[in-house]
Amino acid sequence: MTYYAEPITRLIKEFSRLPGVGEKTASRFAFYVLNAKKEYAENLAKSLVDVKEKIMLCSSCHSLSDKNPCSICSDSSRRDDVICVVEDVKDMAAIEKMGGFKGRYHILHGTLSPLKGIGPDDIKINGLVDRVRQGMIKEIILATNSDVDGETTALYITRLLKPMGIRITRIATGVPVGSDLEYIDGATLVRAIEGRREM
Amino acid sequence: MTYYAEPITRLIKEFSRLPGVGEKTASRFAFYVLNAKKEYAENLAKSLVDVKEKIMLCSSCHSLSDKNPCSICSDSSRRDDVICVVEDVKDMAAIEKMGGFKGRYHILHGTLSPLKGIGPDDIKINGLVDRVRQGMIKEIILATNSDVDGETTALYITRLLKPMGIRITRIATGVPVGSDLEYIDGATLVRAIEGRREM
Repeated sequence: MTYYAEPITRLIKEFSRLPGVGEKTASRFAFYVLNAKKEYAENLAKSLVDVKEKIMLCSSCHSLSDKNPCSICSDSSRRDDVICVVEDVKDMAAIEKMGGFKGRYHILHGTLSPLKGIGPDDIKINGLVDRVRQGMIKEIILATNSDVDGETTALYITRLLKPMGIRITRIATGVPVGSDLEYIDGATLVRAIEGRREM
Repeated sequence: MTYYAEPITRLIKEFSRLPGVGEKTASRFAFYVLNAKKEYAENLAKSLVDVKEKIMLCSSCHSLSDKNPCSICSDSSRRDDVICVVEDVKDMAAIEKMGGFKGRYHILHGTLSPLKGIGPDDIKINGLVDRVRQGMIKEIILATNSDVDGETTALYITRLLKPMGIRITRIATGVPVGSDLEYIDGATLVRAIEGRREM
């Protein structure tokens, strides 16, 4: 690391803090920047600063946005009576990419996790309760991951909101499209058979 | 890509220009930055700008340095009569890391490659000839890679400098330390046997 000039060493060090980036990859990145046009380094630098300065949490859905309320919450063409609850912004992006859902979102920024000591006050559940209390919501779609923490969170929200008289649904668990039953784990198969539907 | 706010999308786009980084990895990097302390984004941004503003080519060895001459060329404790010729700064760093070599370097910034149309004027060979002409140099160690282009370049430099009456050596080709002969390619084995030495 000390075999390069100080500015190069420093850039390698900063790059190697990115997830999954070791010293080798970081120095590949650094030499790419060194060989690239000056504009590239400047644009990346500006994007880094911008993202920290301009991005905030939407006060309604808690999405990351450069506006408050965010573009989805302020889009009048979307349905006001359905909220899709997701763990993070990337999950919301995956659903938006699909394109079929025209309701609103609520981003929890995590899941309940008794093992990690993460309780209801550590994620954005209270905001969801407030939104339901306003009385516009008819259905909550729980789209947390289908792992233990995601299921726990879905169950907790169901118990919390069910008494408020709204419809609560959970995205289906089952065999992914295009997959071979032979390679699907037992737990998924059990859920797929339990959740079977009439043809 | 358009499912995130503009500053996030832009950061993902800039990250995905780095070598070996696709959209998924780039968004992982972007969300790491979003979740990291503001100082991290600022430090990485500053390092990017610094590396482009402060790093220049050493006018003697053509290494990348924030000083001219670079710290190795200006280090009076190093030998003036041996130059190790390498393809790029990363190769120099690998030799420096090893720690045994106490001469100077010359960085070619590439290799001759007739196939890619890279000739002697496209790499830093002229500067090497000038350094030899000054008369201090007794030995040139050719440490270009042992692929076709590296060998071609080593041969070209040998023919160019040999008439000037200095010793020209090439780093040894052979079986890497710790490797199993069974898995070594034939070309390497041939070179290892040709280059055998007395015990």
